[in-house]
Amino acid sequence: MTKGILPLAAMEKLLKKAGAPRVSADAKEALREVLEEEAEKIGDKAARLAKHSGRKTVKKADVKEAARS
Amino acid sequence: MTKGILPLAAMEKLLKKAGAPRVSADAKEALREVLEEEAEKIGDKAARLAKHSGRKTVKKADVKEAARS
Repeated sequence: MTKGILPLAAMEKLLKKAGAPRVSADAKEALREVLEEEAEKIGDKAARLAKHSGRKTVKKADVKEAARS
Repeated sequence: MTKGILPLAAMEKLLKKAGAPRVSADAKEALREVLEEEAEKIGDKAARLAKHSGRKTVKKADVKEAARS
C-alpha cells in the first residue's frame, strides 16, 4: 500500500480523464502509490537543488529541473 | 498551468515529506503539473491495456504495467 497523501477520488478522476471507462478500487490505490513514489523522488531532488543554491525554499525551477532527470 | 485535479495542499505535503523545508506556491503548481502529466500517460496506457484484455474496468495490474513502461 501507499502513504496515502493523494486523495483516491482524484486518482479516479485522472484515470477516467485518461480514457478509463471504469476503475477498480485497487487501481486507484496503485496510481496513488506510483504518483507518490514519483513525487518523493522529485521532491528529494528539488530539495537538494534548492539547498545547493543556498535556499531553504523549493521553487518552481527546482521542481522542473528535478522532474527532468 | 495545470488541469488542477490534484490538491495543492497535498503537493506541499509531498514536497515537505521529501525534505523541502519551505515550498513556494508555484513549486506546488509545478509538482501538480508534472504528476498530472504522468498520471495521464499511465492512465491512457492502462485504459488501453484493459481494453486489450476485453475489460472496461481498469485494474491494479493495468496501472502497474502501464507505470513500468
